[in-house]
Amino acid sequence: MDKYEKVIDLAKRRGFLWNSFEIYGGIAGFYDYGPLGCLLKNNIINKFREEFLIKEGFYEIESPTIMPYEVLKASGHVDNFTDPIVECKNCLESFRADHLIEESINIDTEGLSLKKLDEIIKKENIRCPKCGGELGEVKRFNLMFVTNIGPGGKRTGYLRPETAQGIFILFKRLSQFFRNKLPFGVIQIGKSYRNEISPRQGVIRLREFTQAEIEYFVNPKEKRHEKFKNIEDEIVRLLPAENQINGLGEVEITLKEAVKKEIIKHEVIGYFIYKTKKFLIDIGIDEKKLRFRQHLPDEIAHYAIDCWDAEIYTERFGWIECVGIADRTDYDLKSHSLHSGEQLDIFVEGEEKEVECYEIELNYKIVGKIFKKDTKMIENYIKKLSEEDKENLINKLENEEKIILEIDGKKFEILKDYLKIKKVKKVIKGEKVIPHVIEPSFGIDRIIYCLLEHNFVEEEDRVYLNLKPYLAPIKVYVFPLVNRENMPEIAKNITKMLRENNIIAEYDDSGAIGRRYYRADEIGVPFCITVDGQTLKDNTVTVRERNTKKQERVKIENIIDYLKEKL
Amino acid sequence: MDKYEKVIDLAKRRGFLWNSFEIYGGIAGFYDYGPLGCLLKNNIINKFREEFLIKEGFYEIESPTIMPYEVLKASGHVDNFTDPIVECKNCLESFRADHLIEESINIDTEGLSLKKLDEIIKKENIRCPKCGGELGEVKRFNLMFVTNIGPGGKRTGYLRPETAQGIFILFKRLSQFFRNKLPFGVIQIGKSYRNEISPRQGVIRLREFTQAEIEYFVNPKEKRHEKFKNIEDEIVRLLPAENQINGLGEVEITLKEAVKKEIIKHEVIGYFIYKTKKFLIDIGIDEKKLRFRQHLPDEIAHYAIDCWDAEIYTERFGWIECVGIADRTDYDLKSHSLHSGEQLDIFVEGEEKEVECYEIELNYKIVGKIFKKDTKMIENYIKKLSEEDKENLINKLENEEKIILEIDGKKFEILKDYLKIKKVKKVIKGEKVIPHVIEPSFGIDRIIYCLLEHNFVEEEDRVYLNLKPYLAPIKVYVFPLVNRENMPEIAKNITKMLRENNIIAEYDDSGAIGRRYYRADEIGVPFCITVDGQTLKDNTVTVRERNTKKQERVKIENIIDYLKEKL
Repeated sequence: MDKYEKVIDLAKRRGFLWNSFEIYGGIAGFYDYGPLGCLLKNNIINKFREEFLIKEGFYEIESPTIMPYEVLKASGHVDNFTDPIVECKNCLESFRADHLIEESINIDTEGLSLKKLDEIIKKENIRCPKCGGELGEVKRFNLMFVTNIGPGGKRTGYLRPETAQGIFILFKRLSQFFRNKLPFGVIQIGKSYRNEISPRQGVIRLREFTQAEIEYFVNPKEKRHEKFKNIEDEIVRLLPAENQINGLGEVEITLKEAVKKEIIKHEVIGYFIYKTKKFLIDIGIDEKKLRFRQHLPDEIAHYAIDCWDAEIYTERFGWIECVGIADRTDYDLKSHSLHSGEQLDIFVEGEEKEVECYEIELNYKIVGKIFKKDTKMIENYIKKLSEEDKENLINKLENEEKIILEIDGKKFEILKDYLKIKKVKKVIKGEKVIPHVIEPSFGIDRIIYCLLEHNFVEEEDRVYLNLKPYLAPIKVYVFPLVNRENMPEIAKNITKMLRENNIIAEYDDSGAIGRRYYRADEIGVPFCITVDGQTLKDNTVTVRERNTKKQERVKIENIIDYLKEKL
Repeated sequence: MDKYEKVIDLAKRRGFLWNSFEIYGGIAGFYDYGPLGCLLKNNIINKFREEFLIKEGFYEIESPTIMPYEVLKASGHVDNFTDPIVECKNCLESFRADHLIEESINIDTEGLSLKKLDEIIKKENIRCPKCGGELGEVKRFNLMFVTNIGPGGKRTGYLRPETAQGIFILFKRLSQFFRNKLPFGVIQIGKSYRNEISPRQGVIRLREFTQAEIEYFVNPKEKRHEKFKNIEDEIVRLLPAENQINGLGEVEITLKEAVKKEIIKHEVIGYFIYKTKKFLIDIGIDEKKLRFRQHLPDEIAHYAIDCWDAEIYTERFGWIECVGIADRTDYDLKSHSLHSGEQLDIFVEGEEKEVECYEIELNYKIVGKIFKKDTKMIENYIKKLSEEDKENLINKLENEEKIILEIDGKKFEILKDYLKIKKVKKVIKGEKVIPHVIEPSFGIDRIIYCLLEHNFVEEEDRVYLNLKPYLAPIKVYVFPLVNRENMPEIAKNITKMLRENNIIAEYDDSGAIGRRYYRADEIGVPFCITVDGQTLKDNTVTVRERNTKKQERVKIENIIDYLKEKL
């Protein structure tokens, strides 16, 4: 068994991870979190919230996992979230064309067009790996799960490919929540979906997975971070694009230096590289197996101006991408603005300047008679027009002599002399900007697998999970040394007391004590409490620490304080 | 504005709830949790975990939201999770046939067949409420969102209609995790989906919603609960089926009495009614607006033997179902067992009894020669057969003289004399049972709306949300009395200190102090700290409590302890 198999074997046996739909034969790309996996995951997400929501002052939102066509058309996913697919003409099995080529003739297919992939398959006579049949034409396969909202197939919906879009389309609401002050950070944690053509790689490539994404909105002119100076001396391990191109390896460099040399584009990305590193190491990722790799020019999204992946080393899969940190610029807000017709910008204060603008009033003498009680409605409508809207309206009136306003479903014909238009000068202190977005995006499931692998410790007589106590699913096992002399009752009462103090504890009286320690170690239980003969005399128990196996005697009445300090 | 509008207005303005996809015109049945709503929701879910996971000893799992056809065919959802739909022949708009009839001619349509609904529409000449057009035939519309897993439409998937099914299909894994001991409880918290035909009722009827479901597996012969005696004197407000049929109202009765009189079927349901009530009241639902209504014979699921809804009273919608507590019997496990071919049962210890069973061995003299190195494989296969499988095999051999075994894709022809069959007697202490499942199912979104409505307090000069401090999204606002003399700096430092101690706090220096209190009260901030002139002298601040408006002076160094005690 390689490390992956060992970890997955333990994860399955003990209730961390299970193949989904197992009794129905299973489906690749889906995994369940069992009881221990779910606790571990929740603890990691709580830590994420502590680190980013509470400590950084970001806020979390939760939007639907189903999104309508319009949103994902605007984001570019309807057109571009695709993989090249090829079908066997004989057995009708589908394959990812690029992977098939890479596996067959071992060349790099990154960035190749569909046509090129097709040519290679024909030229190299690559056949179906399953039946040897001839392969069809290489096509584009959209990786979003598609569905219909409501009856009749009138409205196409997709399962979101990333949680980020849910944040972008809330921008107006969010900037109002943050009182229109940049920068601000918004988190979304939840399921995202990717309908992989034929996922392998077990828990590493899932069709349904959990993301924790942060969208940090900044003034495009101010990509500095106020806390950067506190962390700029942190040394990080970087693999810049240039080094990859030139066949050079990683560099260890301070963030200050990396930003100064423009290896990292700006302070905000630098700050998030720091935060990402800190978070991953805090939960127990091995620092020696963590690096930040910059995207190459041919892999970076066309709208992003810098992108770094936190890569974590695993024995079977090598370096895998677990977090992406990208400067997405104003691409998303601009796209949604264009497609929705809503202005997704923010007014930022700046230097005073004089601008010309229009004042529009109704010519009440005329308008009152014509529109009577609807006049108020038209007045309100006019009042709320933005400067841009006003200009459009005035231009239209000049060209067309009259315009039709549609207000609350009613139509009003407006002639030029219904309005009094004045040009005025106003002093404004600032300007509207479309914020840029820096996005750290965490793949929670991959991080959990890496965490298990990095903390899977094999010793001569045992295997233990070296999970930090605050992350361990079960905090305490409580054993009676023997199943008599009141020891089981005392142990059960301790278990109950721990649970009443919000400490997850389990009672275990089955098998020899060594066997019980073994079971506890295997799932990373940090503390085992044993009720023994001495307990009956002096009300103390032994508390045994997982890693060192050291035991201490603690009075039962002090156990809660003793544990709370260590958990 | 009615209460619903007032609550929703506040919720939208301040960032609790937003219509989803608003900039694209919105879609009914979808809501976003804004920054404050998301915090509130997370706090409620944490409380749920504390109450059921930590205190009760249940465990949580997380399974995919996408499920394949097979699972939902077995569960009955493919065939029965439907609403009657009718389409307008003219404008092609779809409507829920039963709702349309109820609204048009005000009769109860519960339990009526499609044919009957169709007849009523024709007979009463009910027309399209939108365009007045003629309506088509009443049909069944399946309420699951449907999609395809992988390319080529080869595999149908659905978005799960309930989280429960994800637990049932894990039964084998789960019972192993719980060391095959009943009872045990499993939780799943997550999104479920219902593709409503035309949802109205705002946040009450969602197409995507969050459930927190518990599946509590019990021995069907032991529907007692060990903790029932601790809570049996609790008085609950029940609306039994019989009272509804006879036009009688609710009764206030102890759980003990209700179970004794068989109003509530058994102790386990009684216990969960208690737990549900406790949870809802603990988070702040008004006890006077909570009742438990039993399902009527024509509304209860055919497989359930008792079902109670926790109903919460709201001003606009009246009593709404927020939690369902049902005894689903062994329906789900049996169905999945039948469809998957896996035995979903558990061996429970009981009285000793002698049973007859078969021992099958290979006749190695013959078999060894024929199958050579495959013999071992056949031996293993035979060893693993269950008693049932053995009987089937023996019967088949007797009828057909030979059988074909398919092992790992290889086929072996087995004649009668290849095997040595012995009938033996064995003593077993217990039996296999298929557990029954008691399910408390919480609709988190509805509970959140009710919680906001019940705690929306209007006073002469303010509105405040009376949220329990531990649930409030933001715990503390910190104000400088005036924006000079170092007060802003001190207030900012206090905010930072609070956040470092995991207390969500916000600094606010904008507008008059009364205005700031107003804003804080409106979102339920339990404590406001003000830095004033005296702070500069003696390092104390005022802490003002939301409900009473009372202020206390507290030393800055004691603030954390002061607040931690109250939060």
